Amino acid sequence: MKIAVLPGSFDPVTLGHLDIIRRSSAIFDRVCVAILENSSKSPLFSVEERKELLTRVTADIPNVEIDSFSGMLVDFLKMKDAHVIVKGLRAVSDFEYEFQMALINKKLSPSVETFFMTTNSAYSYLSSSIVKEVASLGGDITGLVSENIISDIYEKIKNKNK
Amino acid sequence: MKIAVLPGSFDPVTLGHLDIIRRSSAIFDRVCVAILENSSKSPLFSVEERKELLTRVTADIPNVEIDSFSGMLVDFLKMKDAHVIVKGLRAVSDFEYEFQMALINKKLSPSVETFFMTTNSAYSYLSSSIVKEVASLGGDITGLVSENIISDIYEKIKNKNK
Amino acid sequence: MKIAVLPGSFDPVTLGHLDIIRRSSAIFDRVCVAILENSSKSPLFSVEERKELLTRVTADIPNVEIDSFSGMLVDFLKMKDAHVIVKGLRAVSDFEYEFQMALINKKLSPSVETFFMTTNSAYSYLSSSIVKEVASLGGDITGLVSENIISDIYEKIKNKNK
Amino acid sequence: MKIAVLPGSFDPVTLGHLDIIRRSSAIFDRVCVAILENSSKSPLFSVEERKELLTRVTADIPNVEIDSFSGMLVDFLKMKDAHVIVKGLRAVSDFEYEFQMALINKKLSPSVETFFMTTNSAYSYLSSSIVKEVASLGGDITGLVSENIISDIYEKIKNKNK
Amino acid sequence: MKIAVLPGSFDPVTLGHLDIIRRSSAIFDRVCVAILENSSKSPLFSVEERKELLTRVTADIPNVEIDSFSGMLVDFLKMKDAHVIVKGLRAVSDFEYEFQMALINKKLSPSVETFFMTTNSAYSYLSSSIVKEVASLGGDITGLVSENIISDIYEKIKNKNK
Amino acid sequence: MKIAVLPGSFDPVTLGHLDIIRRSSAIFDRVCVAILENSSKSPLFSVEERKELLTRVTADIPNVEIDSFSGMLVDFLKMKDAHVIVKGLRAVSDFEYEFQMALINKKLSPSVETFFMTTNSAYSYLSSSIVKEVASLGGDITGLVSENIISDIYEKIKNKNK
Repeated sequence: MKIAVLPGSFDPVTLGHLDIIRRSSAIFDRVCVAILENSSKSPLFSVEERKELLTRVTADIPNVEIDSFSGMLVDFLKMKDAHVIVKGLRAVSDFEYEFQMALINKKLSPSVETFFMTTNSAYSYLSSSIVKEVASLGGDITGLVSENIISDIYEKIKNKNK
Repeated sequence: MKIAVLPGSFDPVTLGHLDIIRRSSAIFDRVCVAILENSSKSPLFSVEERKELLTRVTADIPNVEIDSFSGMLVDFLKMKDAHVIVKGLRAVSDFEYEFQMALINKKLSPSVETFFMTTNSAYSYLSSSIVKEVASLGGDITGLVSENIISDIYEKIKNKNK
Repeated sequence: MKIAVLPGSFDPVTLGHLDIIRRSSAIFDRVCVAILENSSKSPLFSVEERKELLTRVTADIPNVEIDSFSGMLVDFLKMKDAHVIVKGLRAVSDFEYEFQMALINKKLSPSVETFFMTTNSAYSYLSSSIVKEVASLGGDITGLVSENIISDIYEKIKNKNK
Repeated sequence: MKIAVLPGSFDPVTLGHLDIIRRSSAIFDRVCVAILENSSKSPLFSVEERKELLTRVTADIPNVEIDSFSGMLVDFLKMKDAHVIVKGLRAVSDFEYEFQMALINKKLSPSVETFFMTTNSAYSYLSSSIVKEVASLGGDITGLVSENIISDIYEKIKNKNK
Repeated sequence: MKIAVLPGSFDPVTLGHLDIIRRSSAIFDRVCVAILENSSKSPLFSVEERKELLTRVTADIPNVEIDSFSGMLVDFLKMKDAHVIVKGLRAVSDFEYEFQMALINKKLSPSVETFFMTTNSAYSYLSSSIVKEVASLGGDITGLVSENIISDIYEKIKNKNK
Repeated sequence: MKIAVLPGSFDPVTLGHLDIIRRSSAIFDRVCVAILENSSKSPLFSVEERKELLTRVTADIPNVEIDSFSGMLVDFLKMKDAHVIVKGLRAVSDFEYEFQMALINKKLSPSVETFFMTTNSAYSYLSSSIVKEVASLGGDITGLVSENIISDIYEKIKNKNK
């Protein structure tokens, strides 16, 4: 059984992420979305909240599981008995950073392969940061994230600014 | 009447910025330089001071106005009844970020167009950060900013380091 | 009156080109699409045919004119009393070439400005070459070019291969 | 069964290509190397010869097949009942071209996914063109292609120059 | 006598840095490795510790000296009577930033030249940040830094996390 | 004695080339400009003519010699007992190609180092192709090439078009 791991912050999950998750799930037997627990950044949503949002937007995809990890990504793959990392790419600057990550991960664990997918061009401008920026300025985030998490994002930002 | 909005931090305005302002003002009926009020960064000059410096260096260009905005850029354009954003580009890394901004602004407000101009090659290395770094290390900033704001920059940096 | 010149080969005009033409025509008083007559390449369509196709797909845009030029672009602008070149950008590689062209045109004629627009992300993969390649391999070019020129393209390729 | 198609010219196959073939074969059930029959270019080796060289260097990989195609790549995938294209990437310029190809292939056949792998950094400078250029100038191509095809390449170039 | 200055943070020195230092020392009469004293960042190792590590890993290269500087790099070069800066490049993003630095340094001191070398492709993914990240996650940094400084790095990180 | 080899086509030499030659000659003991004899392209000027033009524009630089080579660049360096290649870089696309060339040359001859210099930003748009294109369209090439070769270029193009 081929398992693909999709690492990321997903703070929050966007339609761009969802597009990559859905398309990967059609190719691999199982897709494991892996939220990076990074204590040094100050995220909008907690890891548990991000898990819940991801679970909600992927509810109709049977072979997806949502998990989180701290430590090295290659160790998480070993634990999951997975050999494939999948990453979406939007632009050249993404590419260079992810390219270096793929090479270092291959050095740390030679049996691990990183596959890059092109983000759907309709989402080429989209990132979690953009979503948070637009929402915090009171803009409309319809078409940027799944309909069923929009109110959670506005709610969270409202509470944070209190 | 065609109004072009030139958004930026202008902390402080450089000869590269001034080149873009001057060239835009020859094409559009009116150019509105729009200082981004971003409370989360710690600028060298306050928004009021940056307005004053911009006003001084553009004194000889009749169709330029200096303003500032918080919130979304597309809302500022609506308020000004403007449909054109102008941005100067120096390098590929500029291009990718600005490209994403142009796409998100188009999504948020479909009638808004972003036009990119190439920075004069004589200023391709120039940014507000470079000016501040050179000045704070005691270097010569002649040829990087307008003559009539040089002493303001040294003064400000001297007071800040006190 | 502000006239923008949109130079290119347009062999044939794609929906990406049309998007840039349409959006420019909303900003400038007049848009002049300028087909480059380049005797050294072997185009699919003659300059006259390309003019006819462009005229057909822009029939509903009142302030567009279709023209062609040989010689230097800056001389064509002088003849048209125009000071603005508009170019669509899809990717970083476009950007570097066009950037150099903008700088050389500015050197040859200092009053000329080049404005770059981002191609609609839905057309980021699209070029005249792609259209010709897909059509010549018998693929479907719906959604790549205007409906009303599709049969002309298949016809032309069929005749060429005879 | 998951089949990955690896398209290319392979004129001739390099150690960079072989690295991508080998690594893909560890992830997918079956890997189909697909030589593009492109009559308009003048290759060094014929399609049949390229097939023979590819067969020789992949002799120890059980789940690899060597094939060739003309026409559209997405039609070849349909014929093979495959949904995955794998491409190796070396540099940013590769990335932009391949990115556009991935988007057009997705448009032509929505169920097709393109996965990009990073070339082993030891081969980041390597291409079939480099191999041919070095060999034709009498340089040493050891370490650029498999040992068991080196003499074929020198022989071919010697005969061509006669 | 030609002196080349190699500026950087070296926090800590990697095998990629060492490769550039060694190769420069074969071309120039004297190589001066110049640690940037930047009080605003919070480095892992102090300037004195970084000097000691650099001295240790370059012990077998006779024409290398280790120094540090604050203020402007071009002033440091003047003090050393040096006219050459050498920088290693890994990727396009490196290139753009370093390109701008080279242009500003040339403006500040016209007799100064910056020479760029390509990092050995085996180290194209390598940076001080990657070393610190892998070490802090308990990963193996063999092959990333010199053998004789590995334990210093683990020790430092262990003490820092206390 | 440190010898730097500057390879290129120089068809014809531009002010951008001359800037790199002049700046290299201030750093290295001797600079050897090496014209690539490439029989497969159809240059405007013959190798002998290009040598003559280069000799003329570098007449005031004592430590420059003009030569030409066929075969591999690394073999030419061996013959000259040189270990340094110098190349000027204008843009990211230059960088990627030259980066691959530097890596392949290092593999073919490990003692050879390639140093890259940034082209003076005033010439960032300049290439031999641009010069030939502008001249053949009757444009002014003052400021693109040395004054004392301008008439040779117009003359050559006039004769070629006869």
